[in-house]
Amino acid sequence: MSAIEDEITAWFARQSKLAAADFPIGIGDDMAEIRVGDDTSVFVTTDMLLDGVHFDLEKATLKQVGYKAMAVSLSDCAAMATVPVAAVVSVALPKGFSGEELKQLHSGITLAGDKFGCPLVGGDITSWKEKEPFAISVAMFSKQAANKPIKRSGAKFGDVICVTGSLGGSGYGKHLVFEPRVKEAIEIARMAVIHSMIDISDGLSSDLNRICQQSKVGAIINAEQIPISDAAKKAENPLSSALHDGEDFELLFTLPEQESKRLLSKWRGPVAITLIGTITDTGKMQIKMADGQINDLEAKGYDHLIDY
Amino acid sequence: MSAIEDEITAWFARQSKLAAADFPIGIGDDMAEIRVGDDTSVFVTTDMLLDGVHFDLEKATLKQVGYKAMAVSLSDCAAMATVPVAAVVSVALPKGFSGEELKQLHSGITLAGDKFGCPLVGGDITSWKEKEPFAISVAMFSKQAANKPIKRSGAKFGDVICVTGSLGGSGYGKHLVFEPRVKEAIEIARMAVIHSMIDISDGLSSDLNRICQQSKVGAIINAEQIPISDAAKKAENPLSSALHDGEDFELLFTLPEQESKRLLSKWRGPVAITLIGTITDTGKMQIKMADGQINDLEAKGYDHLIDY
Repeated sequence: MSAIEDEITAWFARQSKLAAADFPIGIGDDMAEIRVGDDTSVFVTTDMLLDGVHFDLEKATLKQVGYKAMAVSLSDCAAMATVPVAAVVSVALPKGFSGEELKQLHSGITLAGDKFGCPLVGGDITSWKEKEPFAISVAMFSKQAANKPIKRSGAKFGDVICVTGSLGGSGYGKHLVFEPRVKEAIEIARMAVIHSMIDISDGLSSDLNRICQQSKVGAIINAEQIPISDAAKKAENPLSSALHDGEDFELLFTLPEQESKRLLSKWRGPVAITLIGTITDTGKMQIKMADGQINDLEAKGYDHLIDY
Repeated sequence: MSAIEDEITAWFARQSKLAAADFPIGIGDDMAEIRVGDDTSVFVTTDMLLDGVHFDLEKATLKQVGYKAMAVSLSDCAAMATVPVAAVVSVALPKGFSGEELKQLHSGITLAGDKFGCPLVGGDITSWKEKEPFAISVAMFSKQAANKPIKRSGAKFGDVICVTGSLGGSGYGKHLVFEPRVKEAIEIARMAVIHSMIDISDGLSSDLNRICQQSKVGAIINAEQIPISDAAKKAENPLSSALHDGEDFELLFTLPEQESKRLLSKWRGPVAITLIGTITDTGKMQIKMADGQINDLEAKGYDHLIDY
């Protein structure tokens, strides 16, 4: 995220003055929490995806685009270890977009939603006057699982840092077909005390930075322990790809070391969990390279997309 | 709405297979109802607004656009006589859009939200790679008022048809500054048994047609009784303007005649309620002209925008 966008997001959060009783989690996490009854909350997230930015309709099918739009929001539900409930979808269509094309888009939306019991319950279809590009916005609700929702801000000095799956190179194809880690998140939260969690949408460095910023901690990760995807291994700099590419949509979470030992010893997959580092009190992000050298780690990644 | 879009919306609804216990109101009304606890539902709507279609950023300010985007969804909350709770907003920005401009947009969003206790709780900011146009999508939740939510599908043969305010000519300015009828809707539902309700987003003829289609009834309205706005009176054909212009965002509702007498005798405004016609069993819409002639009334209006 650019400095301006960071500043705007923080500014939005400062303006919001949400009553904590009604909105226990406000602007700045993967989802907001809205209290709707004495013991009942709903969680909400929204994501806008643009042709030419988040996908390219000359290469991706509309079914893939519908799937991705839903999967991005499902990944936010996962990031808080909550249970997806329903979604609404609005679209901006280039002039001349056909009913048949809408049905293809719809098939991708329901493919993703049906996997996680998260139906489409409404939407809005609008059309540009000319050939302006396609845009799709999803808003999704979730409800609490057996666990409490897991925030970005709970990381503690001494926690270890874990990720699911492997990172980097998502742009080679995974970004259209990735599996949101909804079930894994809830299973992880069931098996261990998790202090903080986020999904990696903008890159490991950017999203770890969000955990550090919101938890007011630092972090050190070990370059050799980062699970680099096969796609990223083909890149010029596989480590950089795994650190900064974004759109991995894997879970990044922190927990006490003892909890991690229990989790890792009992975890049966199929998605791998890898311990990649430790939360520190340095207030900055660092990376320990293979030769033992410790460098500062900068948050770099998608700078066109921010969640607030 | 064009025939294709009508067909697509109906097709989406048929595909949806929502369990009535979890989703008492599904695709096809102003909002969907999601049951989230034994006695607790949330309602949700989404609206996408596009530069060059729903507003023109060469004439409208960003504050007006933010206000309108929220007000359109607030009007959906009103259409079901529910209480707005919170909103999330996603935007697609032309390259070079500034933080200052985002703050102006935000001021309009909060101006509308604050009026109705409906804060912004999250969002997504995305940017086009070049100068593609600005788009904004709002998703809003509401909760039940003391009354039950009022659907489009409850109109009964013999009901009278009422509207709030005056109709037509919204494009001359009202569409950017209209007052969503949230408080009026809840007050109306408190004072009388209302069978069906919708907000007039696409024009009286289009939205009355939705009530007729979904309630499986016909309707006859009296041309002389339609409250024509001052803006529409300046149009070439004021009646046509009031029937078809759209973006009035007034309430259109039906109720038993006895109830209407009680409501109209006790209603203290400041927004007027006008009785404009009767629900029939003809299965079609008709209009009685000043000379006593009865014509078929066609649903015409915004064909670029459909809610499903």
